[in-house]
Amino acid sequence: MRESELLAHIYDRSKALPGSFAEVVVGPGDDCAVLRSASGDLTLLSVDQLIEGRHFEPGTPTDRIAYKALARSISDLAAMGGEPTAALAAAALPDSFRDADALFDAMHMVAADFACPLVGGDIARTTGPLSLTVTVVGSPHTERGPVLRSDARAGDAVFVTGRLGGSLTSGRHLSFSPRLAEGGWLCDTLGDRLGAMIDLSDGLGRDAGRIALASGVAIELDASLIPRHPDVTDALAAVSDGEDYELCFTARGEVPTRCPQTGTVITRVGWVVTGSGCTLRLDSGQTQDASELGWEHG
Amino acid sequence: MRESELLAHIYDRSKALPGSFAEVVVGPGDDCAVLRSASGDLTLLSVDQLIEGRHFEPGTPTDRIAYKALARSISDLAAMGGEPTAALAAAALPDSFRDADALFDAMHMVAADFACPLVGGDIARTTGPLSLTVTVVGSPHTERGPVLRSDARAGDAVFVTGRLGGSLTSGRHLSFSPRLAEGGWLCDTLGDRLGAMIDLSDGLGRDAGRIALASGVAIELDASLIPRHPDVTDALAAVSDGEDYELCFTARGEVPTRCPQTGTVITRVGWVVTGSGCTLRLDSGQTQDASELGWEHG
Repeated sequence: MRESELLAHIYDRSKALPGSFAEVVVGPGDDCAVLRSASGDLTLLSVDQLIEGRHFEPGTPTDRIAYKALARSISDLAAMGGEPTAALAAAALPDSFRDADALFDAMHMVAADFACPLVGGDIARTTGPLSLTVTVVGSPHTERGPVLRSDARAGDAVFVTGRLGGSLTSGRHLSFSPRLAEGGWLCDTLGDRLGAMIDLSDGLGRDAGRIALASGVAIELDASLIPRHPDVTDALAAVSDGEDYELCFTARGEVPTRCPQTGTVITRVGWVVTGSGCTLRLDSGQTQDASELGWEHG
Repeated sequence: MRESELLAHIYDRSKALPGSFAEVVVGPGDDCAVLRSASGDLTLLSVDQLIEGRHFEPGTPTDRIAYKALARSISDLAAMGGEPTAALAAAALPDSFRDADALFDAMHMVAADFACPLVGGDIARTTGPLSLTVTVVGSPHTERGPVLRSDARAGDAVFVTGRLGGSLTSGRHLSFSPRLAEGGWLCDTLGDRLGAMIDLSDGLGRDAGRIALASGVAIELDASLIPRHPDVTDALAAVSDGEDYELCFTARGEVPTRCPQTGTVITRVGWVVTGSGCTLRLDSGQTQDASELGWEHG
């Protein structure tokens, strides 16, 4: 069973839960879950695993492993327009692994740099590969509230931050900056004009397809508009390569072309229309299903 | 490096964090972390891993794996006197694993039974053993607040819920009840007379030693008082076997001998005195260091 099918299955189950869990504002199926506390404060929560041989190659420096483990989970907070509060890290360490001390030092340093202190954890030995499971806790933008995948409307334009493609081959997947500042700034600047948002882990085609599905709309991407890294020659690769960890969002009205605090470019890459699915219009004028481009994590 | 050393290392690092993280009330080193929200609400957080071949044997029924994964993490909430709000589950699945669907169904059912809905997750394929990492979110007792490991005082008596020993050999480690009701009732009944509390994952000797260390006191356990399961003939085994998931707590003044809601027995097993360490007084009158009895998870 593929991750997308499993997640759909989990999501279906969660909808069947009794309504007595009043604290759960958003359950499975978005970048973060959203809980409401007794006084009404909203908390964002997300968990991600980083597994050797799957998400990083053996021999990757310890500090890069620590960085990616935290940055991936923090990117889920950025995708909701949120800010980090704290993190918990669970590590499964092979018996042969000798750098546990350095790994945890690096995780603490990275976490502190993200203003996301490690407040708990668990360590176990494993006969399998090294794995780090990071749970992040955050808070949504105070005025805008959590930015969901399900708030795209027909007529919205579709945007991405930064440039796409070649993350794995270039090594950028080990050093990307989660778009926290950009996500917060979009909430500040666009407010309710900001529609849906997601972070790009599995490729623009697949992830924009998730917005379309969650929002009950269709998304049309234009290959000629996709901003590519200089080492990515092919628009199709930029749409299908995973692990960009840029933000994809929809919005109505004017959207600045650059985030003033960070200089990150903002590029319109398509439109939201009525219907379903996510298509990519190629330079040839042909269109193809984009939601099956890219890859499944896991 | 052993887990206890690593956790001490992590704890030391966390103390060096700048004081700007005002939301963190309790960091690493207790059963749960405690965060404070903008309005002052307290949230409990804990994460635990369950790894095939380490925490359960290959061939264990899927529903028991799901049960233990959730129950272990929820036991950490019980150890703070808290209640569950929600959980996140990360699963690393071997390519050969065919029961993902049944596993997640079971996790949702167990989570719902604990009133702790699964609100998020992550699924990845692994070349290693099946592992489930469960993060739980909860709230502390409204009046008593979080029950820490560090609040034992010389003069307190030391108690345990239920009976100890033989959890792994009997299979009880796959079916134990986290002592949520008992933890909440202790907060209700004892209030500020309730001192420190921990759940027994690594054996009474080792875990009571953690209370002693965190509280800056010594604990003296009396082997003749330890309540054993009928299949456990040896007091030393009851003190050193892990995975009881009973509560160990300290208290001043009168303590009931049974939790009225659940019938769980409460037994005094020792005393808190000035000094450091945790000793076990044997029937022979000899004492031995109890904090190195039991085993290290991981």
